[in-house]
Amino acid sequence: MTSPSGTFSSGTFDNPFYNRALLTDLYQLTMLQGYYQQGMEEQAVFEFFVRKRPPARRFFLAAGLEQVLDYLEGLHFTGPELEWLAASGRFRDDFLHYLAGLRFQGDVHAMAEGTVFFPDEPILRVTAPLPQAQLVESRIINILHYQTLIASKAARVVLAAPDRLLVDFGMRRAHGGEAPLFAARASYLAGFAGTATTVAAPLFQIPVFGTMAHSFVQSHDEETLAFEHFAQAQPGNVVLLIDTYDTERGARRVVQLAPRLARQGIHVKAVRLDSGDLAEHARRVRAILDEGGLSEVRIFASGNLDEYRIRELLERGAPIDGFGVGTVLDTSADVPYLDCAYKLQEYAGKPRRKRSEGKATWPGRKQVYRHYDRRGQLAGDLLTLEDAAPPPDGTPLLQAVMKGGRRLQASPDLEEIRRHAAGELQRLPEVLRQLEPEAEIDRRFPAVEIAPPLRELAARLDREILDPGL
Amino acid sequence: MTSPSGTFSSGTFDNPFYNRALLTDLYQLTMLQGYYQQGMEEQAVFEFFVRKRPPARRFFLAAGLEQVLDYLEGLHFTGPELEWLAASGRFRDDFLHYLAGLRFQGDVHAMAEGTVFFPDEPILRVTAPLPQAQLVESRIINILHYQTLIASKAARVVLAAPDRLLVDFGMRRAHGGEAPLFAARASYLAGFAGTATTVAAPLFQIPVFGTMAHSFVQSHDEETLAFEHFAQAQPGNVVLLIDTYDTERGARRVVQLAPRLARQGIHVKAVRLDSGDLAEHARRVRAILDEGGLSEVRIFASGNLDEYRIRELLERGAPIDGFGVGTVLDTSADVPYLDCAYKLQEYAGKPRRKRSEGKATWPGRKQVYRHYDRRGQLAGDLLTLEDAAPPPDGTPLLQAVMKGGRRLQASPDLEEIRRHAAGELQRLPEVLRQLEPEAEIDRRFPAVEIAPPLRELAARLDREILDPGL
Repeated sequence: MTSPSGTFSSGTFDNPFYNRALLTDLYQLTMLQGYYQQGMEEQAVFEFFVRKRPPARRFFLAAGLEQVLDYLEGLHFTGPELEWLAASGRFRDDFLHYLAGLRFQGDVHAMAEGTVFFPDEPILRVTAPLPQAQLVESRIINILHYQTLIASKAARVVLAAPDRLLVDFGMRRAHGGEAPLFAARASYLAGFAGTATTVAAPLFQIPVFGTMAHSFVQSHDEETLAFEHFAQAQPGNVVLLIDTYDTERGARRVVQLAPRLARQGIHVKAVRLDSGDLAEHARRVRAILDEGGLSEVRIFASGNLDEYRIRELLERGAPIDGFGVGTVLDTSADVPYLDCAYKLQEYAGKPRRKRSEGKATWPGRKQVYRHYDRRGQLAGDLLTLEDAAPPPDGTPLLQAVMKGGRRLQASPDLEEIRRHAAGELQRLPEVLRQLEPEAEIDRRFPAVEIAPPLRELAARLDREILDPGL
Repeated sequence: MTSPSGTFSSGTFDNPFYNRALLTDLYQLTMLQGYYQQGMEEQAVFEFFVRKRPPARRFFLAAGLEQVLDYLEGLHFTGPELEWLAASGRFRDDFLHYLAGLRFQGDVHAMAEGTVFFPDEPILRVTAPLPQAQLVESRIINILHYQTLIASKAARVVLAAPDRLLVDFGMRRAHGGEAPLFAARASYLAGFAGTATTVAAPLFQIPVFGTMAHSFVQSHDEETLAFEHFAQAQPGNVVLLIDTYDTERGARRVVQLAPRLARQGIHVKAVRLDSGDLAEHARRVRAILDEGGLSEVRIFASGNLDEYRIRELLERGAPIDGFGVGTVLDTSADVPYLDCAYKLQEYAGKPRRKRSEGKATWPGRKQVYRHYDRRGQLAGDLLTLEDAAPPPDGTPLLQAVMKGGRRLQASPDLEEIRRHAAGELQRLPEVLRQLEPEAEIDRRFPAVEIAPPLRELAARLDREILDPGL
């Protein structure tokens, strides 16, 4: 049963992602029937971007591209899906025949995962025949929105505790079964050390962490016996949860037990605190452990933690070596969604602009150029048209990643993405590293400057749309 | 391709739910190895409950039981999962052999889905050998928490607009791919009319709704042409989105187009508004439609709606016939998670109690009895031990649903659950129907009364745990 290499290929695992063609809003299909009947199959350009920056997100971290590309490469309607569509009575047989042969054959440009970005900046552009580019809207947003939401939240936790061990504990209160997989991946690429969600390890090669729950202690008649049994079952990874009844008493029991375990060749690696005033408990537990000769035993804390509480604990000097961050990470609880969109920017060679009140978009195919200052810090971005003259010293952030429905190169592995994200966080200027919800006054930086060619195009389209008819 | 019956059995559809045994926190597996080594396989009792009521949730609506039972019935470790566990080096071969044979063979008691409940009240109890009851913790919470979260949010929207058509629009910003399926189900059982998420229709037999997006209008050179093409493609379901450029002009274009469509035998069913001041637009659009002879055309509204905005629109007399509720529903944005738990209450015949600060639980196997007043309104609940004497006129809410790992009866269908939920909402007293975040002073009702036998058991366990040792 043991694999000789000690490694595991996720290829033998079921793909857990629910990339079914019918995982889409019904209106995509009703629109597709319209496009089909009118023969509207010319090239369309859609871009995904975030409209607004919530006060508690000074920047976003792009994530989810890999799963979007998987989805696009595999997209097709299965027999049962086509049968259901037929039975629904909404669609014509010739259209369903067309759907049966539909595959994604378009191009994708995107920012690398782990890249810092700001409102109005596209992080993904799809160029494809209109029906293909339209159909994929719902699931593309579903994937990119959530992974970006979690990577952006996780990055704040990393900024709050850059030198501590951070572990995603959020599976149980994540929304459904796919969210914790995406959250494990997005938080890891943002700088977390790993996750407690087991299946994320074989799927993404993410380090997985696990200790014990209160029920393990409660199911034993004595806490010390629970500790000993757990240590014997996991001799290489003894992390003991000490707050089930009384945290300091739990710590003293660990000290009392340690010599007996040592005689069995077992060393306690850490204790975990999960309730009460964590800074105060950590100080007392540290003292008990140190006096008991267990200065090498680490202290790990969990329990409704977020970036603010972690920063406060560290500012109070709490001797805590690592943190489990659960629900508030996997739900991005303070900002549970981003105002994002996947919008048509061009069809049949003509730029398009939505003008709905409060929801107007920048038209055309765009590129984002990033500028850095002399110290290498992010200085600001220029949002312009792809075919406009590039600024002299800007770095273009959108690159071709898929052509004709196939990836242009093997995807970067998650470690590479994680290193890229770490570099991005290092290049953040001080104003973007702050955790405080941002006052309007701070919003001058970074300017995402809208280049003149883009402004001119938007103005021209507005004049054309404001026709005098009706 | 057309099914003669016009119906569709979800049995031929892939099960989309990610019920893999490794979708669990790693600590479940490390604890299981401890239980295995110590031979701790006696009966354990775990209960799932919500700890606290957030101010903006005066009650909860139970949901997710059906998917929990599916998960428990199918639970097993696959070959690749066992191979990965072996390769991880954390587990012994004899334990992995034991895991390979592990199935869930326990009993489940639960409240019916769609039942109103309150903090501290278990909505699910698992009674099984300790390892089985422990392993399933993470996924049981993951399923019950999210569906209950969404059903409870959706119920508030239903209370705000009991006589309007309500449709779940939330797929794109739901968290991952499983959440929108669960959200479609949970909002439907709470009283929504249906969802826009296509695959929820064949999976759950939920009505599915779909119209058009701005991109359909934008991809045409003229808005009127877009309307006409859409109507021809969906002649039985013509709902036109009229806010892409200017809402009232869009309405006038519908009026102008209607006679031409009528000559083709096509009638416009509704228009959709998606931006701006919806009440004001709806009034103007209603007038334009009525003056144009289209008084039968309905007005449907969407765009960042929640129960407060919908109530305000209706209080302002907005002539809106239906609402699409998206992101705030599928993320339960104001309360993106509930403080819930699945806790060990008894092991090997002995009641157990967790005493961690701020997280103490009521021990033992419990039952909830509900009381109604003379008008049939919910009057209050009694939380007591299962084997305590029942109150004279209480209705027990927890019923046996699974025995020895098998369902005791076929599951109620979703329509039946939905009718039950509607009855529950009708029996809510006025104080629980309010949408306003609840002040502390309101919290007296409904009393979830803790029965004396339960208080006595908790006190006795506290005395036993507070032993003088260490």
